[in-house]
Amino acid sequence: MRFLGEPHHDGSALYVSDQEPALGSRVTLWLRAPRAAGIEGVHVRAVHDGEPRYAEASVDPARTGAGGYGATDVWWRAEITAVNPVTPYRFLLRTRGGQVWLTAAGLAAHDVPDSGDFRLVCHQAPPSWMRDAIVYQIFPDRFDRSGRTPEPPEWALPRDWDRDPVIPSGPGTAEQFYGGDLDGVVRRLDHVRSLGADTVYLTPFFPARSTHRYDAATFDHVDPLLGGDEALLRLSGALHERGMRLLGDITVNHCGAGHEWFTRAVADPTAPERDMFYFDPETGGYESWWGFASLPKLNWGSELVRSRMPEVLSRWLGPLDGWRVDVANMSGRRGGDDHTHAVAALLRARLGPGAALIAEHNHDASPDLDRDGWHGTMNYGGFTRPVWAWLRGPDLDLGHFLGVPGGVPSRDGTATLASLRAFASHMSWRSYVHSWQLLDSHDSARIRTVTGSRERHLLAAGLQATLPGTPMLFAGSEFGLTGVNGEHSRTPMPWNRPHDRDEPTLAGYRELFGLRRAEPALRHGGLRWLHADADCLVFARETYEESLIVCARRAPGPPLRLDRRMTGVLHADDGDIIPGRGPFLGVWRVTV
Amino acid sequence: MRFLGEPHHDGSALYVSDQEPALGSRVTLWLRAPRAAGIEGVHVRAVHDGEPRYAEASVDPARTGAGGYGATDVWWRAEITAVNPVTPYRFLLRTRGGQVWLTAAGLAAHDVPDSGDFRLVCHQAPPSWMRDAIVYQIFPDRFDRSGRTPEPPEWALPRDWDRDPVIPSGPGTAEQFYGGDLDGVVRRLDHVRSLGADTVYLTPFFPARSTHRYDAATFDHVDPLLGGDEALLRLSGALHERGMRLLGDITVNHCGAGHEWFTRAVADPTAPERDMFYFDPETGGYESWWGFASLPKLNWGSELVRSRMPEVLSRWLGPLDGWRVDVANMSGRRGGDDHTHAVAALLRARLGPGAALIAEHNHDASPDLDRDGWHGTMNYGGFTRPVWAWLRGPDLDLGHFLGVPGGVPSRDGTATLASLRAFASHMSWRSYVHSWQLLDSHDSARIRTVTGSRERHLLAAGLQATLPGTPMLFAGSEFGLTGVNGEHSRTPMPWNRPHDRDEPTLAGYRELFGLRRAEPALRHGGLRWLHADADCLVFARETYEESLIVCARRAPGPPLRLDRRMTGVLHADDGDIIPGRGPFLGVWRVTV
Repeated sequence: MRFLGEPHHDGSALYVSDQEPALGSRVTLWLRAPRAAGIEGVHVRAVHDGEPRYAEASVDPARTGAGGYGATDVWWRAEITAVNPVTPYRFLLRTRGGQVWLTAAGLAAHDVPDSGDFRLVCHQAPPSWMRDAIVYQIFPDRFDRSGRTPEPPEWALPRDWDRDPVIPSGPGTAEQFYGGDLDGVVRRLDHVRSLGADTVYLTPFFPARSTHRYDAATFDHVDPLLGGDEALLRLSGALHERGMRLLGDITVNHCGAGHEWFTRAVADPTAPERDMFYFDPETGGYESWWGFASLPKLNWGSELVRSRMPEVLSRWLGPLDGWRVDVANMSGRRGGDDHTHAVAALLRARLGPGAALIAEHNHDASPDLDRDGWHGTMNYGGFTRPVWAWLRGPDLDLGHFLGVPGGVPSRDGTATLASLRAFASHMSWRSYVHSWQLLDSHDSARIRTVTGSRERHLLAAGLQATLPGTPMLFAGSEFGLTGVNGEHSRTPMPWNRPHDRDEPTLAGYRELFGLRRAEPALRHGGLRWLHADADCLVFARETYEESLIVCARRAPGPPLRLDRRMTGVLHADDGDIIPGRGPFLGVWRVTV
Repeated sequence: MRFLGEPHHDGSALYVSDQEPALGSRVTLWLRAPRAAGIEGVHVRAVHDGEPRYAEASVDPARTGAGGYGATDVWWRAEITAVNPVTPYRFLLRTRGGQVWLTAAGLAAHDVPDSGDFRLVCHQAPPSWMRDAIVYQIFPDRFDRSGRTPEPPEWALPRDWDRDPVIPSGPGTAEQFYGGDLDGVVRRLDHVRSLGADTVYLTPFFPARSTHRYDAATFDHVDPLLGGDEALLRLSGALHERGMRLLGDITVNHCGAGHEWFTRAVADPTAPERDMFYFDPETGGYESWWGFASLPKLNWGSELVRSRMPEVLSRWLGPLDGWRVDVANMSGRRGGDDHTHAVAALLRARLGPGAALIAEHNHDASPDLDRDGWHGTMNYGGFTRPVWAWLRGPDLDLGHFLGVPGGVPSRDGTATLASLRAFASHMSWRSYVHSWQLLDSHDSARIRTVTGSRERHLLAAGLQATLPGTPMLFAGSEFGLTGVNGEHSRTPMPWNRPHDRDEPTLAGYRELFGLRRAEPALRHGGLRWLHADADCLVFARETYEESLIVCARRAPGPPLRLDRRMTGVLHADDGDIIPGRGPFLGVWRVTV
């Protein structure tokens, strides 16, 4: 797959004049095309009120010429109006070889549906701090103990932090209790910050009958086992003092069977709370998450749910700076009901412009994005899976692949790029860059287990640090911890187990995330693919001021040379700048 | 592009046990794979309430074996539940080369978003008569005169039927008046039926100040110039007597500036009708279709529009069997308003299960299909454009291509197939087969002008007759009439101009549409692509009882041989069955 000389556009500020356009505003778009691409004319096609309109682009004399990117590329410029909350657009290129469309999915010499179009989004923009965030995920029972931890409750299965391995499956997984708490997190904020992370995402802190706490017994308080409400305030205060942020984790799809709403609904079929769930009027049975009776599903057709749940999310703002929404893909959906968009819009409106709202969606979230709800998704589908498939170790043997039967497939770089691009093209640039690019989480195998080596692990982290989207690191992976599934990956942190801490991995993360923090182009720049082969991916992250070339190699291969005239990558003859060794991640600054 | 040995599934009855599943019902799916494809295992992935679930498929012993398709293919079978009104699904294939997805967009050895998934649809099914329909479009002013035509009104520009050519652009286009009427249509129903068509679609018949009548002055009566209400009853009666159907054409996006609703709204800003339109409170100006002041846009946020418009559509049922909805893509959309789904759902619910509702959408209609509204679209994007680009004449010079600047591009067979497949994959099989496959209309150039020859014109008609979807023929194209744009194509029919009637073209249509009527596989069969090269497309239309192989060639090429072991097409060595001549359309029945 070769991209030499391809015309390019993406949603970044290098190509779109207004990143937060108001409805009805005029926006300038640029398309760049290496001279060798032979583009003879350009139109922008924008869909207005359901109907495509065409605007002719002209060569921008301010950008096309001697200096900077103008030395190699012709820049075409056109204006369009952001007529609708989401305005799809694409480019029609007149070339010597005929008409070609350019969409976010790439070039096509045939007609394509609008699903891959670029998109201008006029909905309320996410809070500005999200643009630069690096997220650190903490599973509180396993992160650290303050020493003030109370006695475990009767349902709990107490485990020794350093001596007892996590139970990876079967009975006891949800009850195994290591006793981490929120003041334990406070003790380690310097560690978090040393990684370059500035945002802590906590899995649920509500009282429950499990240590994952997705079965909340109330949304009104912090679990006393974690230190209670005061501990959350201490953690939040410590973070905010450091200029850092705190996100919670909320189940809007269900609550725990021990939740006061549900117990009232069960106790009294005439209780107002009865409508909050899906009870079968005949059997008295009820709908629950994946059939787990402990997790009764909320009915978003109920006015009580629609008033109470947004209030819950709103109430915690202040200590929290936003929420990750558990199984957002399922929330509000059941049979003939599809309230998911209404759920997201209600929550978003209630939280106001300063709070983050990220959807858990392990698959294709695009139909739920670019609306007035979720700011982004946990991008398992468009990032985690492709990276796993490219960098999996040769001996990996997992039963399934984030729910997909058959284990982690082995795929080459071109297939990986095709996946990355296909998913990114189905959402706006805004949704893409606000989605979380994660390598693992408390719900998956650990990236170290998937890759099987430090080198490939850090290569994966390098992609996370250099591609668009918010990096999210699951606590422990910076030490190279392992895990074959979500339960198994909920490893107690090895603060007291130096032999379990791989220091070079930790140093690698610090360097990579430090690079991301230092380089605006890695956070806000456009993304232009330059080269892909089985073992090597090369791309540029670019602002108008800087261009960084990133090469990720999973195995040794032929050296590559950057061709500045074509702003692409050629096989090397002389003046190599991309060496052939691997696994390897390289970043070069190219003079603009 | 080669399809030899590819596994296959589509939404037809050969592969899906229930074409009209009820919500919650179990549905059996089959996937067929030539033995040589080496499929080792199959899962179905179906999205339930937003979450993918996997069902393992097993080899179906009833279909895999000695006879029929079982002689060449292994048939895999699985059951899924139609959990949601639209349940997306796809197949995960385990092959020697790794995991491969099969979606409606084809095979992919990388992860792909859900936009191309197959879909089970549980919404109320379209009326059964639509499955077999062939539609004949009539522009009443230009079809035929009964002899009882009244005096033209003052705004009209009277033209002589046989002597005055249509004014193709500029002043007078909307006012040119040839005086066709509905009793004129009655006179020609034997002609319509001789083509194999069984459904007449009339462009608007309401009184207006133009002969296209998209600027209705009322929705209450048939224009007296067309014979009035009684003439519509006569036409409808004559059609229904013959077992044929009649469809109207309604603007739900706008009405005429002379419409009583609008004149009241203009005359009195406090009139209830004021809310039916988008008036600017400052200037008194109003939103209109493409800025034409004669076509004020209806505001579907208005309760009056939501009550009156569905009533209009419903009132005409009886004489009519359904509606084509003008600019359905724009209807209900304006700036921050997007009522389009509500419009479609309201109309559909009001019309009931027996009436057809087809959306005009000249681009990508897929986001508006597979809901509870439109049954299908006029498939300009997914059929007309690709066919035009493949079969355009060498000297064609049109200013634009159905609105796209730069004229009709010239594309080869592989690009054409890519377009056909991309659009078809974005909608359910149901929406695909109920969409209208048209080669031209009163809004476009004529196919004869586009192709430039009888041979290519009939090849295009052959695709219309043999591919899935409802063929729609614009009156006059069966005689090979020409036209460079919509206005120019509104040619008065050449009943009295034998030299303007190309009899071989007429005979060709009768044969092609007759074949479609005779062969259930062409109307209800699956669609399996077998071969594509620059000049040749080969596909199979299949039921469990019959398999028809269709070859469309735009130019001579190498003969091709059908390989029965692979159920594909090979380059010929011996036993040719597909000759190399072209332009050519061939249909073969293959023993199952």
